[in-house]
Amino acid sequence: MNNIELKALEDFPYVEPGDDLAKIILKSFRINNINLDDGDVVVVAQKIISKSENRYIDLNKITPSEKAITLAKELNRDSSFIQVILNESNEIVSTEKNVIIVEHKLGFININAGIDRSNIPQDINQVLLLPKNPTISANNLRLALSEKFKKQIAVVITDSMTRPYRSGVTNFALASSNLQSLIDLSGEKDMYGNILKNTEIAVADEIAAASGLLMGQGSDKKPVVIIKGFNKNKYKVNDALDLVVSREDDLYR
Amino acid sequence: MNNIELKALEDFPYVEPGDDLAKIILKSFRINNINLDDGDVVVVAQKIISKSENRYIDLNKITPSEKAITLAKELNRDSSFIQVILNESNEIVSTEKNVIIVEHKLGFININAGIDRSNIPQDINQVLLLPKNPTISANNLRLALSEKFKKQIAVVITDSMTRPYRSGVTNFALASSNLQSLIDLSGEKDMYGNILKNTEIAVADEIAAASGLLMGQGSDKKPVVIIKGFNKNKYKVNDALDLVVSREDDLYR
Repeated sequence: MNNIELKALEDFPYVEPGDDLAKIILKSFRINNINLDDGDVVVVAQKIISKSENRYIDLNKITPSEKAITLAKELNRDSSFIQVILNESNEIVSTEKNVIIVEHKLGFININAGIDRSNIPQDINQVLLLPKNPTISANNLRLALSEKFKKQIAVVITDSMTRPYRSGVTNFALASSNLQSLIDLSGEKDMYGNILKNTEIAVADEIAAASGLLMGQGSDKKPVVIIKGFNKNKYKVNDALDLVVSREDDLYR
Repeated sequence: MNNIELKALEDFPYVEPGDDLAKIILKSFRINNINLDDGDVVVVAQKIISKSENRYIDLNKITPSEKAITLAKELNRDSSFIQVILNESNEIVSTEKNVIIVEHKLGFININAGIDRSNIPQDINQVLLLPKNPTISANNLRLALSEKFKKQIAVVITDSMTRPYRSGVTNFALASSNLQSLIDLSGEKDMYGNILKNTEIAVADEIAAASGLLMGQGSDKKPVVIIKGFNKNKYKVNDALDLVVSREDDLYR
């Protein structure tokens, strides 16, 4: 494996609630002359999954709890927006730096429960939640695409995330289907024959980050990226959602 | 920009202290039929930079301080190794989970100050430090390579790092030369015409993570990856070393 190619689908159409996303992607494949081969990874931005699954929430229809109202006053924010964040979270981790860091119901830690207003229509006062079950979304999409091409492919759903200790966002893997998302090299040898200990590679996050180079965050309209040439078939498949570390196992907490 | 290609140099030779790394890379370019074009990014693993700069430390020649001896007893580790970690660090952040998390002298937070024994010869009791000044290393390498090809290229030096909240390591950017390492989209519009606020992309880390898909961590012998097709010339160049966030500005601390 010495070459990897990333291709972004160009001018991807606007996605609306109820749209059959697999169908839209397949049509865009035809327009962009993309064929899928065994081992290809189709990387999809969370946002178009959420849109097709109608994860919009109209903030004007939210009744904030007392907790949300109190927090909104403290942080000088909209109480309905805070209520939606609370609804999507297991717990608030911190509000110290005037941002709301939570443990999302899906397990990971991020700001505002991954909810933002970018790249959604702002004609009404709405926000877009993450997919309800991104693993199921990834599986369904993989099945629909692989059936069409009769190939063994993988799907990764990505979101962008700020990180402790580092500036800026990178794309990370929200969930995956049929991918070697976390590869454990423990017991293998390095180039000098030393046995590797505790060496795991977060492949799904590296794939997601790579896709971010083409997807962008602005007006790019490139929410789908195909990665060709990545092949780690000898390792076992695992869900990128499981890359989330529990508090006890997190070396940094 | 719809296509990005990553190429790893195959069978990269073993690098020894004092080696002229630019010369070795140029020779490997010839063998691998690689030509550099304007905008290409050459990604280089920290390990071969450190080796060429002879950043080896013989642990048998280290005299551990009292602090190192005390910590070594507490953590059941080798006191000389701990002394080397202390020498490379501004401060210890935590030893709570029986790992030594430090703020490295270069500013970033990681385990064991980025020092490990993988992919170095183990015939003597030695470890390999990070490059003394990775920005200078990146600049020198870029100048040597771009002079040869007469092209505007970029260089990124990568290391692998564990992360809070996430399993496994990913490659991140230790330093860069002539790259749009952190792109600030604030003020630009998204696809619906909404103005983006506080949107920065850690491009250098995404490039580093992408390169990790080919470099691997084991016996791959692929410490150099060329990325073609990435072009963000309209954004300003900044050093990936500056992606490190100060404690005050870190939203998660």
